[in-house]
Amino acid sequence: MPTISRKGRLMPESPIRKLVPYAEQAKKNGKFIYHLNIGQPDIKTPDVALEAVKNNTVEILEYSRSEGSENYRTKLAAYYKKHDILVKPDDIVVTTGASEALLFLFSSIMDPGDEVIISEPFYANYIAFSTATGVNVVPAVCNIDDNFALPPIETFEKLITPKTKSILICNPGNPTGYLYSKEEIEQLGALAKKHDLFLVADEVYREFVYDGASHFSILQLNDLDEHTILIDSVSKRYSMCGARVGCLVSRNKTVLQTVLKYAQARLSPPTFAQIASEAALDTPQSYFDDVIAEYVDRRDTLIKALQNIEGVKVATPKGAFYCIVELPIKNSDNFAQWLLEHFDIDNETVMIAPAGGFYSTPGLGLNQVRIAYVLNKESLLKAVNIIKEALKVYKD
Amino acid sequence: MPTISRKGRLMPESPIRKLVPYAEQAKKNGKFIYHLNIGQPDIKTPDVALEAVKNNTVEILEYSRSEGSENYRTKLAAYYKKHDILVKPDDIVVTTGASEALLFLFSSIMDPGDEVIISEPFYANYIAFSTATGVNVVPAVCNIDDNFALPPIETFEKLITPKTKSILICNPGNPTGYLYSKEEIEQLGALAKKHDLFLVADEVYREFVYDGASHFSILQLNDLDEHTILIDSVSKRYSMCGARVGCLVSRNKTVLQTVLKYAQARLSPPTFAQIASEAALDTPQSYFDDVIAEYVDRRDTLIKALQNIEGVKVATPKGAFYCIVELPIKNSDNFAQWLLEHFDIDNETVMIAPAGGFYSTPGLGLNQVRIAYVLNKESLLKAVNIIKEALKVYKD
Ligand SMILES: Cc1ncc(COP(=O)(O)O)c(C=O)c1O
Ligand SMILES: Cc1ncc(COP(=O)(O)O)c(C=O)c1O
Repeated sequence: MPTISRKGRLMPESPIRKLVPYAEQAKKNGKFIYHLNIGQPDIKTPDVALEAVKNNTVEILEYSRSEGSENYRTKLAAYYKKHDILVKPDDIVVTTGASEALLFLFSSIMDPGDEVIISEPFYANYIAFSTATGVNVVPAVCNIDDNFALPPIETFEKLITPKTKSILICNPGNPTGYLYSKEEIEQLGALAKKHDLFLVADEVYREFVYDGASHFSILQLNDLDEHTILIDSVSKRYSMCGARVGCLVSRNKTVLQTVLKYAQARLSPPTFAQIASEAALDTPQSYFDDVIAEYVDRRDTLIKALQNIEGVKVATPKGAFYCIVELPIKNSDNFAQWLLEHFDIDNETVMIAPAGGFYSTPGLGLNQVRIAYVLNKESLLKAVNIIKEALKVYKD
Repeated sequence: MPTISRKGRLMPESPIRKLVPYAEQAKKNGKFIYHLNIGQPDIKTPDVALEAVKNNTVEILEYSRSEGSENYRTKLAAYYKKHDILVKPDDIVVTTGASEALLFLFSSIMDPGDEVIISEPFYANYIAFSTATGVNVVPAVCNIDDNFALPPIETFEKLITPKTKSILICNPGNPTGYLYSKEEIEQLGALAKKHDLFLVADEVYREFVYDGASHFSILQLNDLDEHTILIDSVSKRYSMCGARVGCLVSRNKTVLQTVLKYAQARLSPPTFAQIASEAALDTPQSYFDDVIAEYVDRRDTLIKALQNIEGVKVATPKGAFYCIVELPIKNSDNFAQWLLEHFDIDNETVMIAPAGGFYSTPGLGLNQVRIAYVLNKESLLKAVNIIKEALKVYKD
């Protein structure tokens, strides 16, 4: 048999995927599973988006423009303006999810062997895109005891080498829920300028910001037009993960032109999904108010219940809908699998995401899990109770 | 400003794209343009597909499975069976267009520096995907005088080096319209086996086969399960290019597992488009009969008209909806631009695809253009007449 590529062999498999067979077996055995492991919200997609697709008048489902339809990009620029982000439609390349934007990003600004500094723990697929493009990830370790805030900027600066091409943050963060302050963003901006690096922010959770805090985007930084690149998506904002529409936004023309070459090679982003995304921009503010109230309520319920468990540490998330939880265990891969295989209360168990996959520093995150609060409060409470009782009997 | 990647700088820009500003200017000047340059059919998308999207009952637009929805893959396996291609749903990974399937392919079976032999002229974006992955394209030159048939297999074999990992053909071909015979496919299969190479066929035009000929898929080859990989798409088959649904099909489990890792990294293919694609599988045969009759009629009209032009050579396509035309000119890039800038009949002109972009051998294709017969007969005749009159006055 012909051999497959070295890169293909190195591509990571999602750590959650490894648990899937155990979850399937548990279901076959009649167990009900609370899925705390996923980033798929249970929130209804806005009607205005769903209706637009139902009422579409397409007769020939044509390719759209590679950079995304003009109408959509124009409305998107207006959306950003409402968020104090001043960009033109031409600064936007519409992509097939933030996922594709990330792949274009890694391919456009970095060569194999280049380094990207990413604050850790981070969205696991950053490792997949770096592997696919041969880029090396240099983690900037953040700590649960600081709520996963940015480490002191001097510590960050020490990670820069001649190979460093960019800094990547996720704001608010998956898996941490951490919301960067304006000061932190400004510090990163100054660092990017000083060392002539790209500064990239994955802001797909922009809307999910709690406790009256406000989100400061890297595109609000002054004098950094050549350095800053935004990654965005409709997936979480409108609970329409299956649309597959995201975008890359920058004021750097060379970056845009390069990204566009990759976009042209794959022809166009999906048309129905662009119809839905364009319509979704008319989602009333009340939708977001309700969703945010719901997430805050869930977060508070979840954090309180977790803090009541002996030996558990949890950072309070200020945004997104995840938190990292430290458990009194040695290996969360084993614990997560054991929960599915060997534990239940009244035939119910939970699936959690072992946090090792969110770290590239070896050994970190092994006693942590990520919990997504994408279930209703009652389910969250039941799920946390299962974890609590499980910890009483679990032996590493 | 931080520099962008070397790979990004090398990524080709579509040769047709370069003409776009001239086309836009021509339109501004009030000219009507016959677009012979695109692969976007003017055929209506089947109602059954459009209706399924209009009647969808999605409430939360969720991620689908990374490998595509189970229902769709099951129905797709049944579709292949009708075409004498025996595969299981698990042999299929649904992708965001054939474009993404090609990117996954190049990434999964080849490393930077590896070689892929591709029969030339070929779909221009193969160069983009090879550049994106650092793979080197080795062209197997086919000739307009042989209707672009496979060169003698000994010639093909001489191109194989220790770096060769795969052979890629497009069947029927874009831009040639060439349909490979069963014997040719078998010869390629034997070669792949002898040298332990992957054999890949891009069969997105499978349905478009004329003159009673039948299509022989590489997946119909015996004893080559570890070697053969199929690239497919709904874009052309159902005239739904904007859906962005394709797939990669293979019986080689290692290939599938590797491709799946890339698929997982980008989460899922688009959901609405999968709804449309699944429904499209119920398109009645009469739809295809009509479409094929239409294309045959157009092809015959087009070829006859072209053959009537002094100094023009054209290969008769047996499939797809393109043909390569040799013109009595030196440089088709210049000619195509000149048509848009300086020529019209009654304020009408044509846009054609210069063929240089379909060749990687320097100097080849410069006196050729690709014409897509995606316009109705009347328009085709008018467009060819414009080319005819233009050639009378054009000076290289
Ligand atoms: C931080 C982050 N970035 C990007 C993505 C990918 O999102 P999309 O669905 O737009 O590809 C996700 C999905 O979970 C995410 O959490
Ligand atoms: C030969 C060939 N392969 C692949 C593609 C890409 O198709 P898709 O729209 O499925 O990405 C095209 C599109 O024109 C093509 O002609």
